[in-house]
Amino acid sequence: MNTPVPEYLADLLRNCKAFEGGQLATYIPELASADPNKLAVALTTLDGIIYTAGDDEYEFSIQSISKAFAYAFVIEELGSTVVKEKVGVEPSGEAFNEISLDQTEERAKPKNPMINSGAITVHSLIPKTTRADRAETIRQFFSKLAGRDLSFDLSIYESEKDTAFRNLSIGYSLRNLDVLESDPVEIVESYIKQCSINVTVKDLANMTSVLVNDGVLPTTGERILSRQTVRQVLTVMTTCGMYNAAGNWLANVGIPAKSGVSGGIIGVLPGQVGLAVFAPKLDQYGNSVRGIDIMQQMSNDMGLHLLEGIPSSRAIINDQDIKEVEADVKVYKLHGVLQFSEAERLLRKLQEEKRGSNSIVFDLSHISLVNNVGRRMLLDGIDRLRADGHRVALIDPEQILPNAKTNLDFEPKIYHEIQEISKEKA
Amino acid sequence: MNTPVPEYLADLLRNCKAFEGGQLATYIPELASADPNKLAVALTTLDGIIYTAGDDEYEFSIQSISKAFAYAFVIEELGSTVVKEKVGVEPSGEAFNEISLDQTEERAKPKNPMINSGAITVHSLIPKTTRADRAETIRQFFSKLAGRDLSFDLSIYESEKDTAFRNLSIGYSLRNLDVLESDPVEIVESYIKQCSINVTVKDLANMTSVLVNDGVLPTTGERILSRQTVRQVLTVMTTCGMYNAAGNWLANVGIPAKSGVSGGIIGVLPGQVGLAVFAPKLDQYGNSVRGIDIMQQMSNDMGLHLLEGIPSSRAIINDQDIKEVEADVKVYKLHGVLQFSEAERLLRKLQEEKRGSNSIVFDLSHISLVNNVGRRMLLDGIDRLRADGHRVALIDPEQILPNAKTNLDFEPKIYHEIQEISKEKA
Amino acid sequence: MNTPVPEYLADLLRNCKAFEGGQLATYIPELASADPNKLAVALTTLDGIIYTAGDDEYEFSIQSISKAFAYAFVIEELGSTVVKEKVGVEPSGEAFNEISLDQTEERAKPKNPMINSGAITVHSLIPKTTRADRAETIRQFFSKLAGRDLSFDLSIYESEKDTAFRNLSIGYSLRNLDVLESDPVEIVESYIKQCSINVTVKDLANMTSVLVNDGVLPTTGERILSRQTVRQVLTVMTTCGMYNAAGNWLANVGIPAKSGVSGGIIGVLPGQVGLAVFAPKLDQYGNSVRGIDIMQQMSNDMGLHLLEGIPSSRAIINDQDIKEVEADVKVYKLHGVLQFSEAERLLRKLQEEKRGSNSIVFDLSHISLVNNVGRRMLLDGIDRLRADGHRVALIDPEQILPNAKTNLDFEPKIYHEIQEISKEKA
Amino acid sequence: MNTPVPEYLADLLRNCKAFEGGQLATYIPELASADPNKLAVALTTLDGIIYTAGDDEYEFSIQSISKAFAYAFVIEELGSTVVKEKVGVEPSGEAFNEISLDQTEERAKPKNPMINSGAITVHSLIPKTTRADRAETIRQFFSKLAGRDLSFDLSIYESEKDTAFRNLSIGYSLRNLDVLESDPVEIVESYIKQCSINVTVKDLANMTSVLVNDGVLPTTGERILSRQTVRQVLTVMTTCGMYNAAGNWLANVGIPAKSGVSGGIIGVLPGQVGLAVFAPKLDQYGNSVRGIDIMQQMSNDMGLHLLEGIPSSRAIINDQDIKEVEADVKVYKLHGVLQFSEAERLLRKLQEEKRGSNSIVFDLSHISLVNNVGRRMLLDGIDRLRADGHRVALIDPEQILPNAKTNLDFEPKIYHEIQEISKEKA
Repeated sequence: MNTPVPEYLADLLRNCKAFEGGQLATYIPELASADPNKLAVALTTLDGIIYTAGDDEYEFSIQSISKAFAYAFVIEELGSTVVKEKVGVEPSGEAFNEISLDQTEERAKPKNPMINSGAITVHSLIPKTTRADRAETIRQFFSKLAGRDLSFDLSIYESEKDTAFRNLSIGYSLRNLDVLESDPVEIVESYIKQCSINVTVKDLANMTSVLVNDGVLPTTGERILSRQTVRQVLTVMTTCGMYNAAGNWLANVGIPAKSGVSGGIIGVLPGQVGLAVFAPKLDQYGNSVRGIDIMQQMSNDMGLHLLEGIPSSRAIINDQDIKEVEADVKVYKLHGVLQFSEAERLLRKLQEEKRGSNSIVFDLSHISLVNNVGRRMLLDGIDRLRADGHRVALIDPEQILPNAKTNLDFEPKIYHEIQEISKEKA
Repeated sequence: MNTPVPEYLADLLRNCKAFEGGQLATYIPELASADPNKLAVALTTLDGIIYTAGDDEYEFSIQSISKAFAYAFVIEELGSTVVKEKVGVEPSGEAFNEISLDQTEERAKPKNPMINSGAITVHSLIPKTTRADRAETIRQFFSKLAGRDLSFDLSIYESEKDTAFRNLSIGYSLRNLDVLESDPVEIVESYIKQCSINVTVKDLANMTSVLVNDGVLPTTGERILSRQTVRQVLTVMTTCGMYNAAGNWLANVGIPAKSGVSGGIIGVLPGQVGLAVFAPKLDQYGNSVRGIDIMQQMSNDMGLHLLEGIPSSRAIINDQDIKEVEADVKVYKLHGVLQFSEAERLLRKLQEEKRGSNSIVFDLSHISLVNNVGRRMLLDGIDRLRADGHRVALIDPEQILPNAKTNLDFEPKIYHEIQEISKEKA
Repeated sequence: MNTPVPEYLADLLRNCKAFEGGQLATYIPELASADPNKLAVALTTLDGIIYTAGDDEYEFSIQSISKAFAYAFVIEELGSTVVKEKVGVEPSGEAFNEISLDQTEERAKPKNPMINSGAITVHSLIPKTTRADRAETIRQFFSKLAGRDLSFDLSIYESEKDTAFRNLSIGYSLRNLDVLESDPVEIVESYIKQCSINVTVKDLANMTSVLVNDGVLPTTGERILSRQTVRQVLTVMTTCGMYNAAGNWLANVGIPAKSGVSGGIIGVLPGQVGLAVFAPKLDQYGNSVRGIDIMQQMSNDMGLHLLEGIPSSRAIINDQDIKEVEADVKVYKLHGVLQFSEAERLLRKLQEEKRGSNSIVFDLSHISLVNNVGRRMLLDGIDRLRADGHRVALIDPEQILPNAKTNLDFEPKIYHEIQEISKEKA
Repeated sequence: MNTPVPEYLADLLRNCKAFEGGQLATYIPELASADPNKLAVALTTLDGIIYTAGDDEYEFSIQSISKAFAYAFVIEELGSTVVKEKVGVEPSGEAFNEISLDQTEERAKPKNPMINSGAITVHSLIPKTTRADRAETIRQFFSKLAGRDLSFDLSIYESEKDTAFRNLSIGYSLRNLDVLESDPVEIVESYIKQCSINVTVKDLANMTSVLVNDGVLPTTGERILSRQTVRQVLTVMTTCGMYNAAGNWLANVGIPAKSGVSGGIIGVLPGQVGLAVFAPKLDQYGNSVRGIDIMQQMSNDMGLHLLEGIPSSRAIINDQDIKEVEADVKVYKLHGVLQFSEAERLLRKLQEEKRGSNSIVFDLSHISLVNNVGRRMLLDGIDRLRADGHRVALIDPEQILPNAKTNLDFEPKIYHEIQEISKEKA
């Protein structure tokens, strides 16, 4: 059989309600000549599988979507503290092309990296090397995320550079405040070059997958961004990604997102999916009309919403997962995620174990994810059981509790036997 | 054994770093005489278990924390559309006591329900009945959420009423704009009465549990709020709950929250936990100094962060969960949550099934949660397998796919047998 | 013959171009029922002669025009320093009903007394006495200026009081900031009563005459306001009197002015004329449409413009005014104003007097106005002439240089003779 | 004798109270190296006499003082309507280096020509010719006003050009809004060159004399600016010349003024005097500390205040100026200014003339200034006297009523005789 996801995506494009609305961007002459009928969507799973529909090979300039990834790059390079000294993380309540400096702090700085002043400042933080200028460095980074060599669209770049009055005004204003520390014309032009990098929706989906997967590029397994960096990027996408309507977007669509003036939008639901859409006609705020429509539809259809919690603790342990495999040997077979909520539920269940000397085995082979809290709490539970007189062993093929074995009461041999028994009984 | 959570909470209070900072609220005379050393924390699980530490029976006035629950109440009563016409959902970037009207829309309205102008307007939307005025109606609602009969703190109420110049100014301004439709003095005084309802951290934790659990009060199983209402309340808590520093709070703490001037803060991580802290000394923004410190600590210690996705799809199916129980009968044992991400992963796995006439059984007895998308996609997968020639059956004791049986290829008898076989083999 | 001024004013009303435009004020119900066709104009000269045309006996509520005179009253009562601590003198660039507080100073205060927040604060500064509340005190003051007993329009007062939401909002906001120091409802209602005082254009013209005439009421000769008070009132009329369009008004009309929502406008050109117009239909800024048209027309027709300087120094002395009445006795016959410019010109002329012992007589009988600077400089010139050897005498029937005689070189007798000679020769 | 004005000015500098305060401008490196002890003052009379004291030959760059004269130039070149479409006349309430666009109008434009955005826009309106760029054109204009060939200070120009980030930001912002219509870098650099023109206080006093004297350069008698242009320049100096404190300046000093960051301030009291001061140390608003102190002192000492009206009407006619020179021939000897106020007073006096056939002679030889209104009203009075039966003649050596003679009732011969008689009797 075949998975229905591609068909779903194709239907989505076919049924897009907003088919007629919007206008092509006019402020960059070259964008005004785009083909208004292009339409594409792509979706990446947690493990990096890409589904697409429509004009998924059509290239367009990344524009403001680049802001999110360039921000990730500089936080990773310079650290969050250095970057926060230059650019804030607060919603600005203002249009994307406002300067919107936060004057309440000791030193003026752009309110967030999703407005142009913030994005230009972020670009200025990209280290220059002898071999690559800033735009080239960021192109290489984007290429790595996309999994292919991306290129600049030089006609877009030239076109935008000639009419970049607003950005040059912002650049000089930032230079005046020493937020930019060198020639603003060079920085702004390099920033415009960053915006001119050509991508397809497939590229964008690949790029989002690193944010979906907590900083690890699922196609290669390489950790590109720290967990902290991902958090911070997703924070500004949540509160500032869709400009003036952060609250409405979060209430209705519920997916941290970023749009670009060429007609692209990306969305990231961490741990779940990454989305990318493209359709060039824009609404009054500069967001793709059909893109918004499709994102909204996907959020509804697929039940994707940041604020609809996944009650993952319900999976960790159920009565049927607790089996007495032989006299005095009970196996707890754990499932799914093991974080605070799940660990709390497990330990609560363990309270039913009375003081005594029987053996308890935790089968961790079905645990899909554990974090430090889950690990610590499980170890604490084991300690408490032992303090009550129990003997505890683990079935832990994935080494979820790597250092736990030496502390345990079963000999390796016995441990192995228990495991075998457990397997047989299963 | 005993769960370590109470000890953890007690340690948290003991080690609170911010022990010395902050000032008592002074703008309401009665608050200025609060005991500055009171300190309490409470935590509710998804299923409504409450853990507490410190002065967990100490009562204090709910103040602005009431804004979140009153907002939930009026959305539930009047519908989201009616409420949105009166109060927006956008961050205001302004202090809590600003009027902050959104003038860009056709009619002026407060930017969100977390600032005073929005909260006063929300209060005015509470229907008056012959038996209860607005404050009494909301007291009854809060009591239901808290699971006990809450009362007004009349000395706080009187104290605040006498110095409510700012709120009266806001009230008259809203009346002038026809946002309020009757005497603003009556509404403001009734709103102040809402703020004077006395609660403990235990009450607050109980109240948050309905938001943690998607609108259902876990202690009674009663649905109090629709999923849509919960989403909207959590949205405004995410973007406007902690006043001027929404972005920093989301980046660092990552828990939708609401604070009150008496020193309380609540936090909600949907599907995971609800939190409540209390400590009367405030920072310059009017947030509890120790409360923030403790919330931050809990977020770090427990790995609670809205933007740290739970990769729940990894649990749904693994190779070891697929077993050929007899010739031509294969059982897929599914685990955990079944939403879009998991269904996509399952269906992708099913693509490995070649065309043929063997039997496939889905064991749904370990599914902890399913939503419409998950249900629809699983049914779609079943249809596709059948179109490929397979025979499909379900083990579905929880009726996760209630209407699926009639469409299946196994006779009930055979279905039952398979289930037995499956059980025996397990 | 008769002066043509009344005919000019009548023509002005007849030819008013704006006859059709504007709307009646609607925010006060009672004003909405005014007769839209009423039209009146009045003009006062420096010496208090009143010319009128149109409905000059029609009474209307003074409304915001009262702000200028109440401001004058409190400065006179409390001193400029005290009042400036409470209300600024800067243009607000905002509509009249904005709060517009100046937050840059140490303590918040309304930006100027011409916006409602400033006017309410000014009203609160009127001292209360055992015999009269604030509104009554100000009614008595206005009556004194108008030269007749003015009365409150109680139906306007009641009507406005019932819908004074905006002003009550402002009042509570000012109370919150301790700008108002007692119950804002009482102050706002009393302020509204001040606004309800009934006047005719003739009354308004009489009231402006004290501002035209440097603080002295020309009809009685009584000094009501100090020169400093008049300056300050005219300053705020110049920069804030016509709300948002101070610059345009100053450029085009050039007359310090104040308008009211009932349709009146006053204008004051210090030292020249005072103007008052009335026509109830308003433009979008709340200014009388015909009133503005007529003020503009009068400014053009009569060449009245604050920034068109009067080159009064040209009159002080001309060659034909210097006559050698006998050998060695020269008479300088001075004319007009004697201030700095004139004195400088006179003293420059005196430089032509060579050292010597001849007699010089200054005939001051045609001097219409002298100020301290003019007096001091003339005395200085006399000293210098004497230092050069001249003998100097004065013809000074008006005692323009009261203490000068004792210092002069002519014996009283001789002085008298010179005067006689001078008279005969004239 | 000698006039005491130079001594007064020298005393003023000696006694300047603010001797120690302020800081040198630092934002332009070259300005930071100015000699902080330089101090100079100059004063021009209505007829162009210049008095000076202190370092009156010391040259400094004109900086923002140039804004007033460049504004005058473009209004004169392009007309007020064209210029107002590009730059408003409203106070901005903001610091001089804010962009401060008026967005309420149909098209964005700088609020006034005294803030940098307005001044840069004004500069862009200077027509470029084949022989002179904008900076050169304005240098020639300033030289004409100053009465000597002024030069650019190229080291100041270069220094400022290198750090003109703020102005370049403003320039690009204006270009973005199409307020500037060509390359903003060229315009901003040319504007900076305008600001670098070197002047002395004597030059500035000469330049102001054209504004004092209603548009006519008193030293040459040439009309440089129309009356309308002068009005408009003085309007923006009144409301925006001293930045944030327009109201306080107008209340306390009362002289339309403009300051520059190099330490100069000019002041203009139309019809009276022009002032220029120079002292390089600045207050926090960028105004010369000693300059302000001296201007304030001069306003007090010399009684110069825009809002202290000159009651010039009192001079026009007094009883002693009316003489019956022979039976049935009465002479009215008029003095000083003849504008509306004076004409009204004269005509009021003429109302005392009863119907009859006697002859009335107006002696206009002491009239120092007449405007159209005064002329028209006097002619109207003459008509009315004739309608009453009187015969009217004029003594009008200055041709104040040039076309009046042909309408008069005396034969030229008789007229001449009357004049003779009048002279003899005088």
